[in-house]
Formats: sequence, structure tokens, C-alpha cells
Amino acid sequence: MTTITANDPANDWDLLITDANIATMDCSIAAPYGAIENAALAIKDSHIAWLGKQTDLPPFDALATPIISAKGQWLTPGLIDCHTHLVFAGSRAEEFEQRLQGVSYEQIAAQGGGIASTVTATRAADHEALFVLAKDRLNALYAEGVSTVEIKSGYGLDCENEVKILEVARLLGENHPIDIKTTFLGAHALPLEYKGRSDEYIDLVCNDMLEQVVAGNLADAVDVFCENVGFSNEQTRRVFNAAKKHNLPVKCHAEQLSNQQGAQLVAEFNGLSADHIEHLDEAGVKAMAAAGTVAVLLPGAFYFLRETKQPPIELLKQYQVPIAISTDFNPGTSPLCSLQLMMNMGCTLFRLTPQETLAGVTRNAAKALGLTDRGVLKVGMRADIAHWQISHPAQLSYQFGVNKLLNLWILGICI
Amino acid sequence: MTTITANDPANDWDLLITDANIATMDCSIAAPYGAIENAALAIKDSHIAWLGKQTDLPPFDALATPIISAKGQWLTPGLIDCHTHLVFAGSRAEEFEQRLQGVSYEQIAAQGGGIASTVTATRAADHEALFVLAKDRLNALYAEGVSTVEIKSGYGLDCENEVKILEVARLLGENHPIDIKTTFLGAHALPLEYKGRSDEYIDLVCNDMLEQVVAGNLADAVDVFCENVGFSNEQTRRVFNAAKKHNLPVKCHAEQLSNQQGAQLVAEFNGLSADHIEHLDEAGVKAMAAAGTVAVLLPGAFYFLRETKQPPIELLKQYQVPIAISTDFNPGTSPLCSLQLMMNMGCTLFRLTPQETLAGVTRNAAKALGLTDRGVLKVGMRADIAHWQISHPAQLSYQFGVNKLLNLWILGICI
Ligand SMILES: [Zn+2]
Ligand SMILES: [Zn+2]
Repeated sequence: MTTITANDPANDWDLLITDANIATMDCSIAAPYGAIENAALAIKDSHIAWLGKQTDLPPFDALATPIISAKGQWLTPGLIDCHTHLVFAGSRAEEFEQRLQGVSYEQIAAQGGGIASTVTATRAADHEALFVLAKDRLNALYAEGVSTVEIKSGYGLDCENEVKILEVARLLGENHPIDIKTTFLGAHALPLEYKGRSDEYIDLVCNDMLEQVVAGNLADAVDVFCENVGFSNEQTRRVFNAAKKHNLPVKCHAEQLSNQQGAQLVAEFNGLSADHIEHLDEAGVKAMAAAGTVAVLLPGAFYFLRETKQPPIELLKQYQVPIAISTDFNPGTSPLCSLQLMMNMGCTLFRLTPQETLAGVTRNAAKALGLTDRGVLKVGMRADIAHWQISHPAQLSYQFGVNKLLNLWILGICI
Repeated sequence: MTTITANDPANDWDLLITDANIATMDCSIAAPYGAIENAALAIKDSHIAWLGKQTDLPPFDALATPIISAKGQWLTPGLIDCHTHLVFAGSRAEEFEQRLQGVSYEQIAAQGGGIASTVTATRAADHEALFVLAKDRLNALYAEGVSTVEIKSGYGLDCENEVKILEVARLLGENHPIDIKTTFLGAHALPLEYKGRSDEYIDLVCNDMLEQVVAGNLADAVDVFCENVGFSNEQTRRVFNAAKKHNLPVKCHAEQLSNQQGAQLVAEFNGLSADHIEHLDEAGVKAMAAAGTVAVLLPGAFYFLRETKQPPIELLKQYQVPIAISTDFNPGTSPLCSLQLMMNMGCTLFRLTPQETLAGVTRNAAKALGLTDRGVLKVGMRADIAHWQISHPAQLSYQFGVNKLLNLWILGICI
């Protein structure tokens, strides 16, 4: 360790982490992963006050500043899961079993299964029950180094229950160290009681539902499932216009099963992200690039649905569309509550490099949430920092199961 | 809870678990999962002394027997991971990264990568270093309810280092609550120093190496990687004959990449299991059925190598070959240290049912290791019992990431 040669009381940091290798993920640093080896990082007032080569460490208040050694291990930005549906009740396990026994989707739907069963169970659950279920899921993400999680509504599908889900998400934000961002996804699926009346349901979403959500300050963004089995491009546009009226940014479940030009639409609204996008075409990629819309890839759903159509990774790279990776954790199509597993799947199934998957759960995931204060380790950013027992950052995407997390600071606090 | 109506000092159990649902996995119980709901289970001298409907609970020594409630949750046999290579040093993460950057296998091999790099690192590591690395991996498995693990050698590829790996595996067995079974896999790959002299290497495996392993009582079984890129059917036969001379049961990495008739060979030796078997044909399935050889499926390797050729699941079922599921945890082709993930992959990738995957990591995994004292919950079996916060055993295979394990007893002890 560097010997402290001078004392500067102005630099009375809250914490100094020494003997670290830092994958800053800062694009302005040319090294892979924006890496700085043999580095130190200082935290003050929940943010990063200094970082750089340890040999360049400036004088600081050595009496007042606690120091911990990272023991030559790696720091990365805290991980960000930018697309989840983790507030829900009920289990679809028995339905999963039936499907593997040969029962058809139609039969399962006829017996009240599918998303309808999650809606029924979620409507029946009170705030506390939903909170307890969701907290277990957040704890699992936290244990693997996740410091920010987006949570969507979408299993209420009426005013009362969409509000309830977002209230639970806000409560989680107040009571869990993970920072929570919420997204209103009233247009997730058509509730059974609106069968054949999807435009009327979209009226409800755009008016009463969204107004209650806005009145309660319950949503940071608005999302729509734009798909043959979801809502049309025109219906999606109506929801986006309503969101715009309330100055809420938009995002879209787009081009998962077919090309509905959802990504172009979200780009037209300068939206945050288009998510899934297996069926995205070059025009859509170009539109996203022009608008700065992030491509959120969801390899868990790709895996679980045994999809074979790959998202257009090469085109996304060619047009420099930022690529994020997320769990899409939900009970129907991605019951996989592990962002580290998604990093492995991003490499294995989508052939991203470990550097790209790490950017996908840090820098680009922050961008997908419109957050400019995290996702990269540099001065002024939130001190959301994961500390890993690894000798190379590629290990985070390569090996799965033996969790390498040593510490996780969120706003400079490590529990 | 049942009121205790009579006292029988003869039934002075070490522990009584009440208010449980038990997935016994006992084929003699007709219900799915061999389930007994509203059940109790008694442990005496590390084994199961009684289990059944709680209403049938016999009189017991109510003063001397500690009682705990399973709170209406589920018990299953402790999970068994019957195929791992978890004692190794080094990381292949950077090589993984290079491959995703477009570097070819040949270039990586030329720079000392591939299995050679694991062999080099493992040879360089001492017992303690290997023990520490392996213990972390065992802890990860233990945390998800695994009570028995098989560990193979195969990264030493000389007498000294094959012995070292098996000694470490034995040490883990003595120092970790998980019960360890060891397998000698000297014929895993041809070491570089034997290039072009594979028959000579097989001489070494069959003679000096195996003799040292037997002298140290270091192996419970013998395995061979029978493959174009491994050892031939004839070489495998030589190793099996040597094993037979020492009364060691055999198993085989068979039909993973091509059909070498390895499964038929292992069946001819009444072997424990043929593992991988994506390219197995009907004659091989028949031979396995006749010999009682278990099919060990390894969905992690299938996933990681992006294989498309499915193992012949329907044929295996038709001929009633028992199917086990395992991690194949290893740094080259399955760096996935999670048996619960393998249960999900068994369903998702191989279309097994959750009941079949649970049998695959309990009853049939025990059989793959030649163990008749575990894998099923019934009287006389080891008290290796996992306690899960689930409402249906299908949840173990369906949802991944939020670990549902509440307690794990191994030989009646829960740490
Ligand atoms: Zn989604
Ligand atoms: Zn193997």
C-alpha cells in the first residue's frame, strides 16, 4: 500500500477502499472494462469522491478516513436489473408441470391458468403478502451484487390492483437497501373481463389508471406489451401519448414474438428502451440508434421459451445501440431470479462477450432506466459498488453458482 | 398437530418432524412424487425410524423426543449431485472471453489453453489450495439442499496429481457435512507429454495409477471419457477390465459428441451409469436397461456447448432406464455449480417433468452412485432430508434463483 505522505483535512472521506482493481465500465478509459488496476476509491456523502491509481492518491485526512483493503480483488459498479415483474403472487409451477406432461396451452388457459392465474392470485393478495414475496426475490438479487432494480406492474389490470402493485414497489424502495425504479405496465395483457374490448381497456389504462398512478407518484416510466398477443402498435401509441402528457418516459416490450414496429414507435417517443427485440429489423435498429433508445435483451425468456430467433446483435453493435441485459423475472416466461445467470446466458446464448454483458447490467442498464448517476464508477457517481473475489472480470459471466460477491455498497453503505 | 395419546419409551427418537408434506420419491407409493401429505417423520441413529400420515403416528417417548414442525412445508430426500469434477484450480474465464471475441479453439490450445490449462493449474496447486477452492463449490451446493456429491479426478493426469485430487476429495468428505463419493477418472484426457502415445498412457492408468489409487482406498468407482477426442472403446475396455480386477464399479462419459458404443460397453461391465449420452442409440438404451445402468443427463454441458442433439429421452423412458440429472460441474464445458439450475434445465431443455428431474437428483442419482441407503425417504434410509418452503414439489424445478431451502439434515444433523 502507498504510504500516506501528506495530510489534507479537506479530504475527510467517509471511506477509502485501497488495493483494488476497478472495472469502472467508464468508456472514457480505453482499457477493457475501463479497468484501473492497483487502484483506490474514496467515498464521501454516498458518492464517489476520488478514484484512480493508488500511486496517484492525493493527500487526505488520514486520521478521520476509515480505510479498507479490497485485497487485490475487483470492484465493479453495483449491478442493475432494469426489467423485472417481481411483484406478483401465486405460482405457475403446477401449470409448468402440466405442460411438460403434455397438456396444451389452451386447456391450461381454459382452466384459468396462464397469466390469468397470476392476475387472480395477485389481486387476491394484500400489500403485505406481496411485499413479503417480493422481498425474498430482492434479497436474492442483492446477494448477487444488484443495487438497483426496476419493477413493473401488470398483474393487477384494474385501477385498484395496478396501484397496489406500484405501492408495494415503492414500499420496497423505502424498506430495502436496493434502489427501486417503478414502471406502470397496465397494458401488459387484456384482463378477462375486457375480452373483445381491448380499446376500452386501453381507455382505462390511459385515463383513470394512469391518472391514479401519476397522482400517487407511483411510476417512473410507462411500458406496453406491444405484440399480437398483447396490444397493437396503435394502442401502444395511445398509451405513449398519455404517458407523454404526464411527462413520463416510455419503454416497450417489443418484437419478442413478431415484428410490430414497437421499437420504432418507442424510438419515435425518444423512449428509454425496447425490450426483448428478437424480431427487430434494421429499420428498427436505426430508429433506436437515432433516438438513443437502449436494447434490453432478456436471455432468460429466450431460454425458458426455447426461442431460436436471435436478437439482431450484430446490427445493434453496428449502429452502436447500447445493449442492456436483464432477468425479466416473471412467473410465466422467465422464472429465473438471477442476474448473474443472465450474464452467463447473454454470453452463452447470445454470444455477447463478458465485457458486453457486464456493460449490459451496469452502464447500459442505467441508461435503460434513464439514470445518469450510476452504472459507471467515476467521481460524482453514486457509491453503488460491488466487490468480487475474482481475478478477472470475465469470471462474472463465465462461472455460475459459486457467488463471488464479497461486499456490496449502496450509496456508500455496506450492510 | 396430533395429540399424543400414549407414551412408548421404546420410540425415543432423536428427532420428530411433524406437519410435513413428504415427497418420499418412493416408487412403492402410488401418488406423484411418492407424496404423503400431513405427515410426520422420525429420525433415530442418523436414519429414518418412522414416516407416514401424522394421524398414524405411533406412541413414542414424548418426553425424550425433540419435535420440530415443518409448518406445512415440503420434505424431500437430500439432493444428490452424481457427476462433478469440482476439484480443480485455475480459471478458464479469459479463454471463454477470447472465444467470444472470435479466437479459435486451435489458437487457444496452441497457447496452452483448454483442458491443458486446468491440468497445469491443478498440478501446480497443493492439497490446501485445492481444498479451499473445492470447499466454496461444495458450500454452494450445500446451500441448495445437496447432501451427497460425487467428485471425479481427471485434471492431474499423472500418478502424483491424480492421487492428490482424490486425496483432496476424501479430505472434503471428512471435513464437510456433504457425503462425498470419489471416482478415478485418470482416462479423462491425454496429457500433452503422452501426445501420440495414448495406449501407453492407458497402460499407466490401468497399472501404476490405478494401483496407487486402490492402495490409498481413494476411489469408489472408475470412469473413462470414451469419445473421439477422449479414449477409444477398446481403451475404455482396458480401463474397465483393470477396474474389475480391483472390484471397482465403472461408469462412462459416453456418446456425448458421437456414438462410440460406450454405453453398451459400460452395460457389459454392469456399470453404474453412462453419462451425457446425447448420441446414444436404441441398442445402447436396451443394453443399459438390461444391465440396470443409469442414464446420467448433464443439461449444463448441453446448454454451455449449445448442443442441439437431444439425449434419447423417449427411448430411455420406454425401456425404463432410470434417468439421473447432474451438474457435471467443471471449468471447460459446464461451469455451472447449481443442481437446482440443472433441474430447471432438465425440464426446459430436455422436457423432463419436475417429478422426473426430482427423481433424477434423488432416487436415480443414488442408483448412479450404487448407493441403496439414500435418495428415497423411507424407514431405514439415511436421514438426508431437505426441507423446502414450497407449496408443491414442482416448484423446485420451475422457479430458479430464490432458494427455497429452509433446512438440510444430513445423517439427521442440521447445521
Ligand atoms: Zn417483461
Ligand atoms: Zn463430466
